Amino acid sequence: MPTFTHRIYNFNAGPAMLPTEVMEEAKSEFLNFKGTGMSVMEMSHREKHFQTILDESIADLRELLNLPSRYAVVYFPGGATLQFSAIPFNYLESGDSADFALTGVWAKKAFEEAKKFYPNAKAIFNGADSKYMELPTITDASVNDGAKYVYITSNNTIYGTRYKTFPKLKKAPLIADMTSELLSRKLPIEDFSVIFAGAQKNIGPSGLTLVIYDKEKLPQVSHPIPNLMNFALMEKNGSLYNTPPTYSIYMAGLVFKYLKRNGGLTVMEETNERKAKKLYDAIDASSLFYAPVPEAFRSAMNVVFRSHNDDLDSKFLALAEEQGFAGLKGYRDVGGFRASIYNAMPEEGVDALVSFLKEFERTHG
Amino acid sequence: MPTFTHRIYNFNAGPAMLPTEVMEEAKSEFLNFKGTGMSVMEMSHREKHFQTILDESIADLRELLNLPSRYAVVYFPGGATLQFSAIPFNYLESGDSADFALTGVWAKKAFEEAKKFYPNAKAIFNGADSKYMELPTITDASVNDGAKYVYITSNNTIYGTRYKTFPKLKKAPLIADMTSELLSRKLPIEDFSVIFAGAQKNIGPSGLTLVIYDKEKLPQVSHPIPNLMNFALMEKNGSLYNTPPTYSIYMAGLVFKYLKRNGGLTVMEETNERKAKKLYDAIDASSLFYAPVPEAFRSAMNVVFRSHNDDLDSKFLALAEEQGFAGLKGYRDVGGFRASIYNAMPEEGVDALVSFLKEFERTHG
Repeated sequence: MPTFTHRIYNFNAGPAMLPTEVMEEAKSEFLNFKGTGMSVMEMSHREKHFQTILDESIADLRELLNLPSRYAVVYFPGGATLQFSAIPFNYLESGDSADFALTGVWAKKAFEEAKKFYPNAKAIFNGADSKYMELPTITDASVNDGAKYVYITSNNTIYGTRYKTFPKLKKAPLIADMTSELLSRKLPIEDFSVIFAGAQKNIGPSGLTLVIYDKEKLPQVSHPIPNLMNFALMEKNGSLYNTPPTYSIYMAGLVFKYLKRNGGLTVMEETNERKAKKLYDAIDASSLFYAPVPEAFRSAMNVVFRSHNDDLDSKFLALAEEQGFAGLKGYRDVGGFRASIYNAMPEEGVDALVSFLKEFERTHG
Repeated sequence: MPTFTHRIYNFNAGPAMLPTEVMEEAKSEFLNFKGTGMSVMEMSHREKHFQTILDESIADLRELLNLPSRYAVVYFPGGATLQFSAIPFNYLESGDSADFALTGVWAKKAFEEAKKFYPNAKAIFNGADSKYMELPTITDASVNDGAKYVYITSNNTIYGTRYKTFPKLKKAPLIADMTSELLSRKLPIEDFSVIFAGAQKNIGPSGLTLVIYDKEKLPQVSHPIPNLMNFALMEKNGSLYNTPPTYSIYMAGLVFKYLKRNGGLTVMEETNERKAKKLYDAIDASSLFYAPVPEAFRSAMNVVFRSHNDDLDSKFLALAEEQGFAGLKGYRDVGGFRASIYNAMPEEGVDALVSFLKEFERTHG
């Protein structure tokens, strides 16, 4: 195992790299937050210091996303997986149906979880035929009669695919798992009824989930909902129905301020598109590496690539690790390589990876 | 607002003070964990570094509690509140009943949550009559026929009560919410079927919950359980069914190592009993302050006290805050004062608080 005295380029898919300046800020007040004599981690969630942290983080997020007031912003614990259960509980009555676009592992998990409680849930697309390399074009014509919502995974971390443009639906509300891309680009929020994202990609530490939903489109269901899955209850209590993951909210708040300082989502989107293009261009120009995802569906967050010579894979990963490029191994079920280049990955990191790919090809190609 | 350049005595009920040496250790590797070039917060939960952190934390916890192998240890997200829903889902079939001892807000919340889904849940004790100042003696004779389990809150943070000794039952398994006292004293684990604890008192940051359960007593229920509430599923996946709150698990692991270095639960229990006695003795000897909880039920973690002169309350709290005694305000529904003196509160902190109480009484009594 190589050891480093400096911070390296961390291409992990999530939990993932956080901006170094955010980490330094958190470190500087880790033992004593702004003269309180304690860490944010040790602070009561009912006191004014934490309330200010919470309120500012939500105000900053609303500003970054330019959220209309009818959208609620709620912090949930538990990761996106809890929302796989919570969304059907909040949006479906017994016997209701909803439509799912199965574009990968996470969409399938969400679908299976919904079906456990609402057996009429339906798949309107199955990406298995294309090995999840393609995404559907979803229009009102795709939506089953009676579907209470349409569910998509906007960016598929494992396969490196994303919807370049989002469905615009009139027939049913759109719900999206945006875990691996929220805050990486601008968003036509009014096209969505619910978006949610586990924090561990572009937001902060794992164990925290952001849920943003249109309050006017939240139905009143007739069955009980477990409290920590209940959108209305959590919203009414300002994300403080129970003790929330306070430190993770604090870190998310620091990240939101960092994004605001650095030009907001307009700049993030430009930078991320440029970073992704540099990397895909280098891979497309290579005779050793290739990108399996068709251009139309390529993610700007998770760049999946492979080598034409599988024998070199472990050598490539070992050399990358040695030179300070971490987390390039592809998802366990997929193999190959993946470079996750979230907001926090500086453009220099992508440039360095491009150079490393070229050098590896020169010496091993 | 006073500001401090040093860490103060933090009597918050939770999130609560963590050991300063643990905080310093975490700070020292906040930007670069053991030469990996990244923070634990930025590490994949599927990589060996984090797996080692997770495995060691569970091994250390097992050692601290001297857990028999038939007890599973699982990290859940979501706080104890998620367990209020999860336990009935895992242990009850439709129509089943369970018995709840209502010793305070948290027991009532757990009871109400169970009743939403299992209307036959029953209260076997209602502390409202004593304003929650007393706890029941629960024996097999207290247990309703057919009850699938008996549920208690072992330490009631708000009222400052605890079971000095635990019920020993043959008629039904015992389940305990130990959020505010787990790891503060030795435990006859074999008397329990399930114990669980939100981390934010004696374990680590909020947003993490420890669940310890007897695998041989976990029933196979016939209905679906939301994945993040499913004990068997979470256990089978070694707390990695989804992305767990990785940083909080790391912090918990540091706390467990700190407890082991410092004599384990035997020493913790002795120290905590001594700290609590000093504080209760000072309050009992005071003519200004008094402790409302009868001696038999007094918590060693949350020392609740009041003043005979309510007019002085806000002055007391302001002066305390100024002098670096934080978090002494009683729970919002109860008023008065509360000093939470978890493992991380050094004995010097209690000594300093005792001196402050005496000095306040001398100058204001």
